[in-house]
Amino acid sequence: MTKDTCLLIFMISFLTCIHAQEPIDYVNPFIGTSNFGATNPGAIAPRGMASVSPFNVAGPKNLPLEKDSQWLSTPYVNENTFLTGFSHVNLSGVGCPDLGVILTMPTTGDLNTNHLEYGTTYKNEVAKPGYYSVELDKYNIKTEVTAATRVGISKYSFPKGKANILINLGLGLTNEEGASVKVVSSTEIEGMRNVGAFCYYKPEESYPVYFVAKFSKPADEFGIWKKTKKYDGVEGQWMAYNGKTRLYKNYKKEVIGDSIGSYFTYKFDQPTQVEVKIGVSYVSIENARKNLEEETKKLSFDTIYKNTASQWNELLSKIEVEGGTEDDKTIFYTALYHTLIHPNTLNDVNGEYPTMGKRKTAITKGTRFTVFSFWDTYRNLHSLMSLIYPKQQSDMVKSMLNIYDESGWLPKWELNATETTTMVGDPAGIVLADTYLRGIQDFDIEKAYEAMRKSATQLENNPLRPGVKDYIEKGYLTTKTTKSGSVSTTQEYNITDFAIAQLAIKLGKKEDYKLFSKRAISYRKLFDKEFNLLRPKNDDGSWYAPFNPNQGANFEKNLGFIEGNSWQYTFMVSHDTKALMKLMGGKKKYVAKLDEVFDKKQFDMANEPDIAYPYLYNYAKGYEWKTQQRVTNLINEYFTNKPAGLPGNDDTGTMSAWLIYSMMGIYPVSPADPFYTITTPRFDKITIHLDRRYYKNETLVIEKNGKGKLNSYIVKGKNNKSFFISHETLTNASKIQFNLE
Amino acid sequence: MTKDTCLLIFMISFLTCIHAQEPIDYVNPFIGTSNFGATNPGAIAPRGMASVSPFNVAGPKNLPLEKDSQWLSTPYVNENTFLTGFSHVNLSGVGCPDLGVILTMPTTGDLNTNHLEYGTTYKNEVAKPGYYSVELDKYNIKTEVTAATRVGISKYSFPKGKANILINLGLGLTNEEGASVKVVSSTEIEGMRNVGAFCYYKPEESYPVYFVAKFSKPADEFGIWKKTKKYDGVEGQWMAYNGKTRLYKNYKKEVIGDSIGSYFTYKFDQPTQVEVKIGVSYVSIENARKNLEEETKKLSFDTIYKNTASQWNELLSKIEVEGGTEDDKTIFYTALYHTLIHPNTLNDVNGEYPTMGKRKTAITKGTRFTVFSFWDTYRNLHSLMSLIYPKQQSDMVKSMLNIYDESGWLPKWELNATETTTMVGDPAGIVLADTYLRGIQDFDIEKAYEAMRKSATQLENNPLRPGVKDYIEKGYLTTKTTKSGSVSTTQEYNITDFAIAQLAIKLGKKEDYKLFSKRAISYRKLFDKEFNLLRPKNDDGSWYAPFNPNQGANFEKNLGFIEGNSWQYTFMVSHDTKALMKLMGGKKKYVAKLDEVFDKKQFDMANEPDIAYPYLYNYAKGYEWKTQQRVTNLINEYFTNKPAGLPGNDDTGTMSAWLIYSMMGIYPVSPADPFYTITTPRFDKITIHLDRRYYKNETLVIEKNGKGKLNSYIVKGKNNKSFFISHETLTNASKIQFNLE
Repeated sequence: MTKDTCLLIFMISFLTCIHAQEPIDYVNPFIGTSNFGATNPGAIAPRGMASVSPFNVAGPKNLPLEKDSQWLSTPYVNENTFLTGFSHVNLSGVGCPDLGVILTMPTTGDLNTNHLEYGTTYKNEVAKPGYYSVELDKYNIKTEVTAATRVGISKYSFPKGKANILINLGLGLTNEEGASVKVVSSTEIEGMRNVGAFCYYKPEESYPVYFVAKFSKPADEFGIWKKTKKYDGVEGQWMAYNGKTRLYKNYKKEVIGDSIGSYFTYKFDQPTQVEVKIGVSYVSIENARKNLEEETKKLSFDTIYKNTASQWNELLSKIEVEGGTEDDKTIFYTALYHTLIHPNTLNDVNGEYPTMGKRKTAITKGTRFTVFSFWDTYRNLHSLMSLIYPKQQSDMVKSMLNIYDESGWLPKWELNATETTTMVGDPAGIVLADTYLRGIQDFDIEKAYEAMRKSATQLENNPLRPGVKDYIEKGYLTTKTTKSGSVSTTQEYNITDFAIAQLAIKLGKKEDYKLFSKRAISYRKLFDKEFNLLRPKNDDGSWYAPFNPNQGANFEKNLGFIEGNSWQYTFMVSHDTKALMKLMGGKKKYVAKLDEVFDKKQFDMANEPDIAYPYLYNYAKGYEWKTQQRVTNLINEYFTNKPAGLPGNDDTGTMSAWLIYSMMGIYPVSPADPFYTITTPRFDKITIHLDRRYYKNETLVIEKNGKGKLNSYIVKGKNNKSFFISHETLTNASKIQFNLE
Repeated sequence: MTKDTCLLIFMISFLTCIHAQEPIDYVNPFIGTSNFGATNPGAIAPRGMASVSPFNVAGPKNLPLEKDSQWLSTPYVNENTFLTGFSHVNLSGVGCPDLGVILTMPTTGDLNTNHLEYGTTYKNEVAKPGYYSVELDKYNIKTEVTAATRVGISKYSFPKGKANILINLGLGLTNEEGASVKVVSSTEIEGMRNVGAFCYYKPEESYPVYFVAKFSKPADEFGIWKKTKKYDGVEGQWMAYNGKTRLYKNYKKEVIGDSIGSYFTYKFDQPTQVEVKIGVSYVSIENARKNLEEETKKLSFDTIYKNTASQWNELLSKIEVEGGTEDDKTIFYTALYHTLIHPNTLNDVNGEYPTMGKRKTAITKGTRFTVFSFWDTYRNLHSLMSLIYPKQQSDMVKSMLNIYDESGWLPKWELNATETTTMVGDPAGIVLADTYLRGIQDFDIEKAYEAMRKSATQLENNPLRPGVKDYIEKGYLTTKTTKSGSVSTTQEYNITDFAIAQLAIKLGKKEDYKLFSKRAISYRKLFDKEFNLLRPKNDDGSWYAPFNPNQGANFEKNLGFIEGNSWQYTFMVSHDTKALMKLMGGKKKYVAKLDEVFDKKQFDMANEPDIAYPYLYNYAKGYEWKTQQRVTNLINEYFTNKPAGLPGNDDTGTMSAWLIYSMMGIYPVSPADPFYTITTPRFDKITIHLDRRYYKNETLVIEKNGKGKLNSYIVKGKNNKSFFISHETLTNASKIQFNLE
């Protein structure tokens, strides 16, 4: 080895080392792309409207994980091998197939518009925040993609010869159909694609996403394709394109239909790069064009990527960690990355967005957020946002209140200005109260309270609280009130009513505090001593029988519990844990029952109702070590630096938020109760850079001292034997030290 | 019978009698609705863009005359019985299925969006110019429809109870698919529907027709329906609407797709009438709305109908007839009615229209006409327009020149600003020359000449004259030049070159006159003495063999002749009849050969190439009686006051124009040669009200004297033994008297 080589190696190691200190370098976007995590490795800017995801879920070559042959709600599955394009609007970590449309695909040779034929295997995938690249085996094309907030950008490195860029508007992850497309010029295409009707509950909740595509090189030829219906008989014989895909060559008019696309064709004398920018909008083609121009005009692929990467790094750097393994850091920052995808931006650069339900065009001042999967996210994601990104959380809350103004109701599972009414409960109020009680208060709290109270008290035509009459009269929903989930829905309403009560007392509404505090514990009527578990009741007040508490695991449908069984729901009353403990016969029986959940393999790390369970031991003095043990084991078992490194569906970041909290050693165990319960942090030192607009300190440091059992923490020099700490105390302390044995 | 009853009967008879004198009352729009006449009895204004036709060609209940099971190019067939709606843009007398879309349908009871189920039998059809009514058996709904130029208007008389008005955008006569629709309010719907690609030659010649529908009563409920694709597997099971028609109830956003529609639903306490006005446009939804508002705003159904009827009556009254039977008058005025449907209006009320091919929005001063089926209409329809409606003909010619400006070429078979390139030849120039030579000269004749000359002389990339190189070099197309019709295409080019020559000499272009006069007779090289018929030649100049002159009848495909055989084409050289006579060996042999065509049943009254044949006896002195006999017999045989009362497809009025001329006793036997040949008029007296902007006389009277053979005519007091009269002489005479034995 020469001195020079030595120096070079040193330099590289040094630079790598320097470089590796950036949080962005610890993100592995492949985590969650297997095991039904439903994330994708595509390029996206923080909370971007557009993203560019590889699409490899269509066609028999991807069986068994093929989009139409089974329930699949992601455009990309890591173990699949057959890629048919890159979709430009995508959801991350959701449970129903939607979006996954506006598919681009670069090919070479003769034009082929059948994705089952033009699809290809691929190699050398690279994914980073804001960047994804892959080499397409069949065509020897390297594809790199990046994204601005509302624009997806692709760079295709074509070999010499004939090349095609397809925009397929028939293929998509969604089961919706219908699109229009028009070639504007030899460098521009515009159109729209229907999406929506998430989970198929509301056929009428379908809506268009608009796009404008600009190409860095003018096409030599272009056109539209459309699959046509097959006619029998003499006319069919005459139609050369009968039942086939027909081409509209050099066609510059709008084409409309269920299965259409457009193509640009080139002939290259030498290897050539083409960049394609696709701006999207939920308002209009004109806005899609504005988005594209304002965010990316004149900017090269590399500059756009650099900007987006820098946005990511800035956000991820709000938390710095020291200690822990490289994998620990990777799963941590990837989780943080996943919490910064949804809720995402709905408004265009000019502030325009479609209003809730009616889809009228309105203008927002701040960011109008969308994709509120509150049944999932009320449990931890929003309190995490309040802590780390309070300005974002404030804008999310404002978006919720705008939705209330626009539609008369708070959102439940909002998606691009439609209310999908997926899942149960009335979770928005929990988020509103939790945010306010954590000190993020720059929104109209009286309106928020009015909105919360409305869904809690309106007896008729209440879309948020079906069964509310029974709930108020009897204290619970019955097996007659709902087809499924009478107990779990009662529990969800209880938690929301608890949130209303907490907010009421804060706002000086004492009567309401009493009213809702009382309502918040009505689940107790469903506690059955016989099983020491919650159990559904019939309309006449009798227990539902026969009762098998195991029924409902693995998403099996059952009368009492939504997506779960009695084991997975009984403890989901964090706001009333002491009382539940008493109902069960005291601390020991409570702990034994909680152990039983785990021992009997009834605990489901992948589903929300029970994700706070491991933290519940902290309520039983002397058993806190069990929380530490279980959380550590759960992290080790379910969260890894692998595509299958999420326990299941990320649920728009809820699983990831669980991980972030758990690795920091704090968890918001009782939503709308502004405190954390604690466990052993994974890292030696965690520095949170607080937002000075909301918090008085610049930073909050969480430090770990020792290696064994966590016994106490020190705040402002005072040792504290409690396993709980309020949000206020924590954020007002510049440092918390966890003492381990 | 009382005196009063007597008086009443007398009064009614008297009024009926008075009333029956109006030409409009002689129109029977059912003529041509059977025997593949391809006309429809729907309501239309003269040269209207919109029309409202009953649609009874869908579904197995209409077999065998069902639109998809056989070649059917009309929305209505008289013998069918199952009605599935009323289409709002329609073609009359064309050979390929197009338009026949934007289908309305009134129903009662529960909403059903499947036309195979909501269709019904019907009774009591009434059709008059601008009006059609029918009673729907299944629903007990009387439907009346009328039309303004760009608006279709329907009046539904609903019984008490639940009622629905559907607008089906999936169903249509065209094989095109794709539509969008949006409920604007409870009284308005807007949208578009793809049509085009006429005869399936050019998949890319597809384009939208836009519409706005306004309802006189607000809907109690409304919505959209869409047929969805069927998914297998678990997702399919979850989708309640999988593979079914899904409803978007009270939905006010745009829906797009191949099989969609919208519905308005009412609950009536008592029998109620609802009027629906549908404005259409080929430019935009906004223009469709303008068309609707400007033409029909605030006007009731009855007023609109009265206006349209009065327009019809005014136009039809340009020719008055006396004598003849009631049926004679009926077939005559119905034929005149049919010549006033196409060409029709393309531009909107604000003058906007889509330009040829490119479909850019431009503005016209006069009417921009469309639907130019020149291979058919150059033979007689346009000279009839020059005689009776010269201002319309002038605007048609100007539209042709605009098309030349817009696309670089004259139209051939133009349809809604697309060039369908259906049929052969280069017929536009014949129309331009014929019009000019008949004295309609208020257009840019130099541009017209330039355009004609271009298609006659451009050797490469000439869309109007494929095979033009062979044609100029050899004098004819060969069996190698074309896949079909080498002889007939040569003949068509000859006729156009004859037209150019005639115009050239008129414009003082002597060299061109010589050049094109010579070219115009090159068909002679295809005359085969062996058969005394025209015969295809091969590339090397040899005769195509084996040659069967019968081959090609009944539209059988063959190398030499398009839609016909040698018998049906050989005489189609009216401009050179004397020479053909000589080639055949003189007058007697010519007459014998012509007789043979009829005797051997090779004459086809339903197809254009030979429709002038019966008039060719006039060229053979002493045989003129045969013209009179044949024309009389052909009228009697093929033209009747019955649905099957046209010999076949009306060919956008060409068959009707043949009848009008033949019943008036004059026929423009040689296009671009401005004279008529004569035969016995069907009526005793015919009064043509000439347009003083183009003709110096107010009227031209054709009178018949005697009952036997026609021998001579008297003009300006001078007896004339000729069987020909120039257009100029005829129109300058205020009267021509036909002397019969």
